[in-house]
Amino acid sequence: MLQPPPAQPGMPEAAIDTPALLLDLDAFEANLDGMAALLAPTGTRLRAHAKTHKSPVIAHQQIARGAVGQCVQKVGEAEILAWGGVPDILVSNEVVGAAKLARFAALARIARVAICADDAAQVSAIEAAAEQAGRRLTVLVEIDVGAGRCGVAPGPDAVALAQRIAGSRNLIFGGLQAYHGSAQHLRRPEQRQAAITGAIDASRRTVEQLRQQGLDCPIVGGAGTGTFALESASGVYTEIQAGSYCFMDADYARNLDGAGAPVGTFRHALFVLASVMSMPRAGIAVVDAGLKALATDSGFPEIWGRPQLRYVGASDEHGKLECQAGDAPELGEKLRLVPGHCDPTVDRFDWYVGVRNGVVECLWPVAARGALN
Amino acid sequence: MLQPPPAQPGMPEAAIDTPALLLDLDAFEANLDGMAALLAPTGTRLRAHAKTHKSPVIAHQQIARGAVGQCVQKVGEAEILAWGGVPDILVSNEVVGAAKLARFAALARIARVAICADDAAQVSAIEAAAEQAGRRLTVLVEIDVGAGRCGVAPGPDAVALAQRIAGSRNLIFGGLQAYHGSAQHLRRPEQRQAAITGAIDASRRTVEQLRQQGLDCPIVGGAGTGTFALESASGVYTEIQAGSYCFMDADYARNLDGAGAPVGTFRHALFVLASVMSMPRAGIAVVDAGLKALATDSGFPEIWGRPQLRYVGASDEHGKLECQAGDAPELGEKLRLVPGHCDPTVDRFDWYVGVRNGVVECLWPVAARGALN
Repeated sequence: MLQPPPAQPGMPEAAIDTPALLLDLDAFEANLDGMAALLAPTGTRLRAHAKTHKSPVIAHQQIARGAVGQCVQKVGEAEILAWGGVPDILVSNEVVGAAKLARFAALARIARVAICADDAAQVSAIEAAAEQAGRRLTVLVEIDVGAGRCGVAPGPDAVALAQRIAGSRNLIFGGLQAYHGSAQHLRRPEQRQAAITGAIDASRRTVEQLRQQGLDCPIVGGAGTGTFALESASGVYTEIQAGSYCFMDADYARNLDGAGAPVGTFRHALFVLASVMSMPRAGIAVVDAGLKALATDSGFPEIWGRPQLRYVGASDEHGKLECQAGDAPELGEKLRLVPGHCDPTVDRFDWYVGVRNGVVECLWPVAARGALN
Repeated sequence: MLQPPPAQPGMPEAAIDTPALLLDLDAFEANLDGMAALLAPTGTRLRAHAKTHKSPVIAHQQIARGAVGQCVQKVGEAEILAWGGVPDILVSNEVVGAAKLARFAALARIARVAICADDAAQVSAIEAAAEQAGRRLTVLVEIDVGAGRCGVAPGPDAVALAQRIAGSRNLIFGGLQAYHGSAQHLRRPEQRQAAITGAIDASRRTVEQLRQQGLDCPIVGGAGTGTFALESASGVYTEIQAGSYCFMDADYARNLDGAGAPVGTFRHALFVLASVMSMPRAGIAVVDAGLKALATDSGFPEIWGRPQLRYVGASDEHGKLECQAGDAPELGEKLRLVPGHCDPTVDRFDWYVGVRNGVVECLWPVAARGALN
């Protein structure tokens, strides 16, 4: 069941019911503008990742600032975007199952869509879906550029799969998916540089080998919030797939620059607003946001603007805070928590509550919340 | 947006779209029957915890087997149950905020409801909500019996708060909430025994001190799936609040008995059905269920019936499996994953898919999914 929104436009932030997924609109818009400004001189296109925000509203704001379209990981996410008028969507992932591929193919009638493969059997399944739907479908080859998750090996294996796609009358070879996920959170810039240098080299080599076989790559896509400056300067990557940059989270904020300081390119725009629901004894406060309201896979949240409060334990519906003497919150007080990991935190909520200058300005649905299929 | 169900009744399990939240109905019903049989001779009532299942359908099945009602942690969960005809609901938690308390008070017109407090300010707020709604509301005092989360200290502090409640013409003192959460997953029986002996002693002492002040405790509630046998044999606890027993998860299955073997009272009834979406290289398979489909706070899932497959890494939409030679799954193969932690895993889905003998028998909504407020 869709949950009722925890606020109404015009309400002061202090009146928002908790837990709530708060979007600081000034910071959010600054992040969108910042990415557009950074990518413009590189000539690299932004195809922002909607796995982070799951919202056609946000997708359209990214596109209005120059993004070429959106990435998603699931067909269900692609449906929500296409139904919400997003014109260009890449499923940056493998998809198995005839039912899902039929849904994907159906979207080709209302949006420009593409999908990835890393196995000839997947290509055959996409081909069958294309035949059935009477539409040519665009397929990218995913190559493993170092993340060790999905993807064929760069080079000859990738070329063979691309030739299989290009040789099908139902398919169009769309290029390479070359995302290095595990590089995004390497803390030191030289670590990220080393990892992405490898990804760039593998991509460049594969693009060249494809060209020798007469195959162009309209898209060479990858990069995230941690490394996009490297891929966008490579001359090989044509599209950047960053997602988290629009929100930032506590984990990305731990990435460092060459001077050992936080990179700081983007601002924290996403918060879980929580209330202190119990003050059971000195030094401890309990808030109403635990594991069901916050993803903790990348660490506990930080307490915005209250460095002396530490979130030290999460159970399903409770978060335990340690308080320094003199900075204890009050029972009922509302605190902004910066999630450890933004993507799965957003997926816990049905509504964004957009705030500016302390007032609720808008409600946006997390329209693809739970779109797992 | 509510997601479409991933299956239809009558379909074979192999045709279910993935990821899906699977309920093995035989195991589930055996768990419900098993708990009813274990509690019957003790005279202790079951008030099963709906934070686990979030479903009026399941609540009614528990009540049909003798449960006195349900617990919830959130007013939003209480609403879903009350609107679904559940007649007796305890919010086993503190609730702050006038808007939430007004919603709680409104439920008193369609169900028997109660709520907890651990602070006089909360009691005053509940009193105001009761006055406003024109209904007397039942309030339990939560005592900290060792978990170190919410709750006043047992003994005089609890008695003072109970007297504050009993002295209000708008409130009814309902008894004690005495849940020891951190004892539930202590692995060895002597550890659980030691923790719960402390909880029982603290509860008994507080009940006795209340009686000396002329205050009876209609409810002394607590206990979970890990320790309920101890509380139900105590002669002090009147209600057992176990939730996970109906599903079991991988973490609870690591609790041991006196012989060092898994306790084994309940069966795994809950699974996330996942598909192998990529077989990128020897020894590795990738499934389509990651952090957004599975709670990993209590460890990665186990692969049901396939002990040679290990889930070794989760990203947002991917799970990485290590495969022993000779037991690698096939691309597209569906696997049952046993979640590490059932409660927050259930909260990721909109639908239970009930299966029996390999066939989908029913779809039930996870009606209170996302009811965080």
